[in-house]
Amino acid sequence: MVKTVPIPKANTEHRRTMSAIFGAVVEAIAPQSAVERWFDAEDYDPGEANRVFVLGAGKASIAMTLTVEARLGDRVAGGVVVTRRGDDAGVDELQYVEVVEAAHPVPDESCETAARRLLEVAEQAGEDDLVICVISGGGSALTTLPAPSLSIEHLQRVTKLLLESGATIVETNAMRKHLSAIAGGRLAAAIEPARHLSLILSDVIGAGVDAVASGLTVADPTTFHDAWAVVDKFELADRLPTAVVDHLRAGLSREVDETLSPGAEAFRRGRACVVGDVELAVCAAAESARNLGWDTAILSTTIDGEAGDVAGVLASIAQEIVHRGRPFQPPICLIAGGETTVTVTGNGRGGRNQELALAALHRLAGEPQITLATLATDGIDGPTDAAGAIADAPTWQRAQQAELDPKSYLQNNDSFRFFEETGDLIFTGATGSNVNDLVIILVGHRDE
Amino acid sequence: MVKTVPIPKANTEHRRTMSAIFGAVVEAIAPQSAVERWFDAEDYDPGEANRVFVLGAGKASIAMTLTVEARLGDRVAGGVVVTRRGDDAGVDELQYVEVVEAAHPVPDESCETAARRLLEVAEQAGEDDLVICVISGGGSALTTLPAPSLSIEHLQRVTKLLLESGATIVETNAMRKHLSAIAGGRLAAAIEPARHLSLILSDVIGAGVDAVASGLTVADPTTFHDAWAVVDKFELADRLPTAVVDHLRAGLSREVDETLSPGAEAFRRGRACVVGDVELAVCAAAESARNLGWDTAILSTTIDGEAGDVAGVLASIAQEIVHRGRPFQPPICLIAGGETTVTVTGNGRGGRNQELALAALHRLAGEPQITLATLATDGIDGPTDAAGAIADAPTWQRAQQAELDPKSYLQNNDSFRFFEETGDLIFTGATGSNVNDLVIILVGHRDE
Repeated sequence: MVKTVPIPKANTEHRRTMSAIFGAVVEAIAPQSAVERWFDAEDYDPGEANRVFVLGAGKASIAMTLTVEARLGDRVAGGVVVTRRGDDAGVDELQYVEVVEAAHPVPDESCETAARRLLEVAEQAGEDDLVICVISGGGSALTTLPAPSLSIEHLQRVTKLLLESGATIVETNAMRKHLSAIAGGRLAAAIEPARHLSLILSDVIGAGVDAVASGLTVADPTTFHDAWAVVDKFELADRLPTAVVDHLRAGLSREVDETLSPGAEAFRRGRACVVGDVELAVCAAAESARNLGWDTAILSTTIDGEAGDVAGVLASIAQEIVHRGRPFQPPICLIAGGETTVTVTGNGRGGRNQELALAALHRLAGEPQITLATLATDGIDGPTDAAGAIADAPTWQRAQQAELDPKSYLQNNDSFRFFEETGDLIFTGATGSNVNDLVIILVGHRDE
Repeated sequence: MVKTVPIPKANTEHRRTMSAIFGAVVEAIAPQSAVERWFDAEDYDPGEANRVFVLGAGKASIAMTLTVEARLGDRVAGGVVVTRRGDDAGVDELQYVEVVEAAHPVPDESCETAARRLLEVAEQAGEDDLVICVISGGGSALTTLPAPSLSIEHLQRVTKLLLESGATIVETNAMRKHLSAIAGGRLAAAIEPARHLSLILSDVIGAGVDAVASGLTVADPTTFHDAWAVVDKFELADRLPTAVVDHLRAGLSREVDETLSPGAEAFRRGRACVVGDVELAVCAAAESARNLGWDTAILSTTIDGEAGDVAGVLASIAQEIVHRGRPFQPPICLIAGGETTVTVTGNGRGGRNQELALAALHRLAGEPQITLATLATDGIDGPTDAAGAIADAPTWQRAQQAELDPKSYLQNNDSFRFFEETGDLIFTGATGSNVNDLVIILVGHRDE
């Protein structure tokens, strides 16, 4: 049976198509589906492992572990995964693996306790054992464990300063990993000498797997020198807690950098596999569209930037197709994946996906051949319960009739209320997964 | 002979290609080439016209008129064109048409005088005469002529209020045209009963020809009601000069709206032709690239939005091509046209084209197969004498070597100084034309 996502006013071909495409995406990115598909593709067998442990952290921990248990059954000897407090769907179905809840997004002692449990179990694994690690977004905060001389407050101060400095995710990770007792591959070091296999559901755009959950089990491409370079660049030496500065200086002064770099012993018997990321989502969307008879063009899987400006560029490409038959002939389904940002200037309600759709609307007003829809793959776009919105010329007309001014709503970052009024919000419910955001644009034929 | 634009460090295939493409674009958009090409394509003959007058306004007035004189010779009985004060290149070569200089961009009395001269000559043309109007960007300010009860100061106040309100170009034009004695087709009304032909070099993106030079000779799609709707929408009634409000109210209260709408007598014997716009520029770029063996994809001719965010989307598409072979197989030349904006936060020097290239640079750092270049087709990008910049991985390397931080320069809107240091500015000199901006991205093979 083809799953669909309810799309408002799905009485046109475009909206029916969106419904099916979104259904296919939500189905494909579900943590259980993603892990199952990986097992199938690999025809995976743990081989001659003595005991199999499962360790993990992230919002999709339970769902991913359920699949591992379903596939390996009583070969699973035990383990522990960390999930977000309150996110315990499926916990009762687990047979072998323990679940620890911890605070998210602001870490507290529960995260330290959880991280220590992971390290304890990791240490129990011997040379003949296998540790399967299930890693997903949120895993970094959920397993916050400061290096011995540091506290959670120290790390929070670091995070705040880096945020204010405008440091990139790469710079932030370089610092974080060198202040942690579990990130940057240190969980893998604890697992060693056992073999380990990491199954990673990635919510990170345009960065390596080491950026997911601060790379608990993968090599750290940065060094103490890189971490210190960030301190220098943003002139943080005087503003960071003394303990942090001392810790980094100590790391620098050691004869051998203690970073777990690629090639370290910890990864000799380890393997990291991405079971799902934005690529999975765009490919699921493309496959679904093709099955419905649409040609497809995946424009990008690394979209970033201000939602409103991204909307303009993507919609302008759709308009070029309608009016000039280039760079593609219509009909075509355009697909883009990534993660935009919204610079908040108003006090309305919305999310980056809804805002992108609202910002595109003025270009769609006179274009009956174009329908644009957005999807936060976790099903939760910003602080709303909508996953995204769908926008087309009829949306514009409904707004005109209701005397809603799209521009005012946009200026107030009030995309949720706008689309609530026009009836164009998309609800998937929480998908339990997160592989970032999708934009789908159908350009071309309509049957009514 | 193939013309080229000097591109810095043009020792790679990509840079040599850019040099040829930009040369072809600059050649194609030159006002004289554009008008010549139109004459050729139309195999134009003024027919049995008794006298031929030339009227016109805009920065390209003289160059366009030179071509009309060259083609029609002594069939030109006279005329007058308005150019920007000091922009008198070629004036000595004109034989039949008078040139009036006026203030730009801030209008003063010289603009009123110039506009009155245009109307005077227009009134002289009789039923058997033909008036050829050469219209280009800047023509609106250069021919500022308030309606009888209004002053230039009134119009300046209106412009300021609309700018502060965030009114769109369509809204601004609706107001302007209903406060003018020459815009919104009123020059055509003065020409009538003579025939008229408007040759338009368009610097307007995604709007009709009525938006170029406030539509001196073309029908006004808006009415007094539309103008008043703008007053209402931005609650300007109490802030506008009383004379302006009275003028609009008088227009509203007349039994017949005096707007020169499509279908008005003034346009019965008139014709408006776009001889050049961003379409001409992207097509010239595409043809040049194809001649050099590149496949091409014109992504859009209506790009807008913040330069930095547009850069991200366009570069992300180029990266998708390199890493995934989609939505196109490399090698390919991507082309986009439009006009971005820059929200100034720093006090550096630069223009939107240079800023776009700088914002793309971090994505190009690790991509030796990608080269991106930008071009302001008037040759003057922002308050600089550069037309744009070229950015690729070697640019990044030179910046690293010189310890230039692209992000800091970007935050300071200092793209000119950045590319001055890396040696990647592009200079074409003033082209005398303006059909907005181009982005060209070469993706794929390199011969070194």
